[in-house]
Amino acid sequence: MATLIKNGTVVTQNAKREIVKADILLSDEGVVEEIGKDIDEKAELVIDASNHIVMPGLINTHTHIAMTLFRGYGEGLPLHDWLGKKIWPAEAKLTPEVVKAGAVVGIIEALKSGTTAFNEMYIAGMKEIMDAADELNIRAVISRGMFDVGEHTIDEQMDHTYEVIEEAKKHSELVQAAISCHAPYTASSELIAKAKELARKENLLFHIHVAETRHDVVSMIKQRGVGCIEYLYNLGVLDDKTVLAHASWVSTREIRLVGQAHATVSHNPISNLKLATGSIAHIYEYEKAGANVTLGTDGAASNNSLNMFETMKFAALLQKHKYWKADILPDQRILDFATVNGGKVLGVPASIEVGKKADIIVVKKTPNLLPEHNIIANLIYASSPVSVEWSIANGKVSVEERKVPNEEVLLEKALNEINLFFEQLNAEKA
Amino acid sequence: MATLIKNGTVVTQNAKREIVKADILLSDEGVVEEIGKDIDEKAELVIDASNHIVMPGLINTHTHIAMTLFRGYGEGLPLHDWLGKKIWPAEAKLTPEVVKAGAVVGIIEALKSGTTAFNEMYIAGMKEIMDAADELNIRAVISRGMFDVGEHTIDEQMDHTYEVIEEAKKHSELVQAAISCHAPYTASSELIAKAKELARKENLLFHIHVAETRHDVVSMIKQRGVGCIEYLYNLGVLDDKTVLAHASWVSTREIRLVGQAHATVSHNPISNLKLATGSIAHIYEYEKAGANVTLGTDGAASNNSLNMFETMKFAALLQKHKYWKADILPDQRILDFATVNGGKVLGVPASIEVGKKADIIVVKKTPNLLPEHNIIANLIYASSPVSVEWSIANGKVSVEERKVPNEEVLLEKALNEINLFFEQLNAEKA
Repeated sequence: MATLIKNGTVVTQNAKREIVKADILLSDEGVVEEIGKDIDEKAELVIDASNHIVMPGLINTHTHIAMTLFRGYGEGLPLHDWLGKKIWPAEAKLTPEVVKAGAVVGIIEALKSGTTAFNEMYIAGMKEIMDAADELNIRAVISRGMFDVGEHTIDEQMDHTYEVIEEAKKHSELVQAAISCHAPYTASSELIAKAKELARKENLLFHIHVAETRHDVVSMIKQRGVGCIEYLYNLGVLDDKTVLAHASWVSTREIRLVGQAHATVSHNPISNLKLATGSIAHIYEYEKAGANVTLGTDGAASNNSLNMFETMKFAALLQKHKYWKADILPDQRILDFATVNGGKVLGVPASIEVGKKADIIVVKKTPNLLPEHNIIANLIYASSPVSVEWSIANGKVSVEERKVPNEEVLLEKALNEINLFFEQLNAEKA
Repeated sequence: MATLIKNGTVVTQNAKREIVKADILLSDEGVVEEIGKDIDEKAELVIDASNHIVMPGLINTHTHIAMTLFRGYGEGLPLHDWLGKKIWPAEAKLTPEVVKAGAVVGIIEALKSGTTAFNEMYIAGMKEIMDAADELNIRAVISRGMFDVGEHTIDEQMDHTYEVIEEAKKHSELVQAAISCHAPYTASSELIAKAKELARKENLLFHIHVAETRHDVVSMIKQRGVGCIEYLYNLGVLDDKTVLAHASWVSTREIRLVGQAHATVSHNPISNLKLATGSIAHIYEYEKAGANVTLGTDGAASNNSLNMFETMKFAALLQKHKYWKADILPDQRILDFATVNGGKVLGVPASIEVGKKADIIVVKKTPNLLPEHNIIANLIYASSPVSVEWSIANGKVSVEERKVPNEEVLLEKALNEINLFFEQLNAEKA
């Protein structure tokens, strides 16, 4: 379906970071065919963007989208009680149906807050998460977080990952498989090395939680005499297809190692604050060292939202705070973290340019975005999901005038599934 | 006009902090007449809240609402360049018309993000800000921030404040006058003492910026040998009708002084991060010491939004981060800061109880607020203006199905005024 987006303020995120007042024509296949003034083509869908910003969709490089089913579950507990008493016992009972339901609620929230692609790590229902991504039209890079503790073996875990790779092939081009290990404290060095080897062979992304808490690093130093990043470096894991989630408790040397490898850091500022992990990732220094800095929300269980506009604001403000320097990072860089840098590592479009597939959102200039002295600052510091009117992922409409098609029916079904799951869980406990 | 809000999940914020599924009946005068099941009264307006949270409006205890006209103006400059080269030269040229325009945009944003009362300090156009509050139906406590530096005299400044007091009397009960001094570094001790004396005599709120930056405190110690709060204590300014904005660079003894006086701290976490002031206010300790902790957005020039839901999230998360303790403050306390504690010091309703005027918002359970394991956590960590459907201030509707009446016309007029102002400003510079 050819689409014409008329008269928007286009934040292209192209190499020159141009902002132009223009029309955008998408081909039947959803490719950007033309960007220019007064395009006079017939199109099946015409979006009036005369009071709107048209920009690339936001890219969330670390989340557990299905965990939206746990939003607000076990709040106010210290971390280990929260995990041990609430999340892990419930996760042990997960069904494919409830994972799908959590993914549906999470993806609807993500789409309506401007996200068009996410990098997922979870431990169950990977097929259902892929199904949800396809049905709701959002790009998803999906991996099963492998861990070989307790009765879990390397072979069993690798089998899960082979399944993910096969399953992704049965889905649309929106869905990509990736390979992940949960963390250095839950995956053995043998598993991590094997996983990265497979990722290299298959040319897939490798994704891992690392150096999230001080405890992670202290344990690693006690056991192995090095920090968590240096440990991964020694395993040969750092390269430009590796996403390091969190990476906040690190040494200066480790920042340099990440930078030299051009690895990606996925900074999750809100989750880090919420779980009181104590360190704000050194994204200013990572970027200077050559790392690819990107942003993530983490799961809604520890955020508790999937709003990437909010994540940009937290990321920008926390760097200013960390360095006591109001102009530590230009606003443009923050927008880049959430668009082009994410796109680079996930291999998805993150700028509006002729010839690229359209991953585009149309953001209304609601009162919170007025006046318009500085569009980029408005997007980072003053936006909210209230402004997101249209979303197009891989050239197809996902959000239409602030609604996901069939949204209410999908939500009701998902919530029934989630409620049923918790009823059964509580009944078993009683 | 009698109003019936049907079947909402009512977060009452009453003394027991009850959450009930109920109808709410408002009298013709906008007073809460009944809260209960299946109220079967005729009402001119019936709001179906069956998929909504009904809660007190949020109360912003420190802002410069008219500064919304400067949103994004001079971004990315260090603090002193920003003030000296951008904000102050522009503020010197302010007209009543452009102040009104800034206030209109700011109030529309505030209302649509759930705020029903704000505590304003500004330096021009006080009458126009009051007019805007009356026209848009929001509660406003208005003060002119007095300063006697340069050619400005105490008498001249006090005259401005007398005018504010008289002007407020010409406005509706939504508008209250207050008395403020800009800050200890711009107002002399004589002016501060005089201002507080007048506030006591007139039984008005006293409002002042204090201990916002390390520089403020270092200068004060150099000049007077005490910190900023201790200085105000020595001037006799601390009591339960004083609002201390920021108050982040303080000693333990100063926290005790604020607590013993039951003074109000208005914590502005986002502005503090944005201006890289370096300290996060010790609201956990202030509260323990007996202070009345409240929240503010500061102006949109240094935030850049007026979204109190966002401010609750920042405030909650920054305390967790500051103390490396995920459960440092119960979520309920954060909601209290933004409602009942603000209401206490501003003298406005902040709970839903029979006999009180209705200052109520109706928040739709949009996907970001689902599932509903924990309503309070959802409100603090997962809300956004996208969910705010209705707002009622002082018993009258301010936001109706996500729209301020006549919103587009008002915005267009305000933006024309703001654009004209900046065109003239730039022409004068050229």
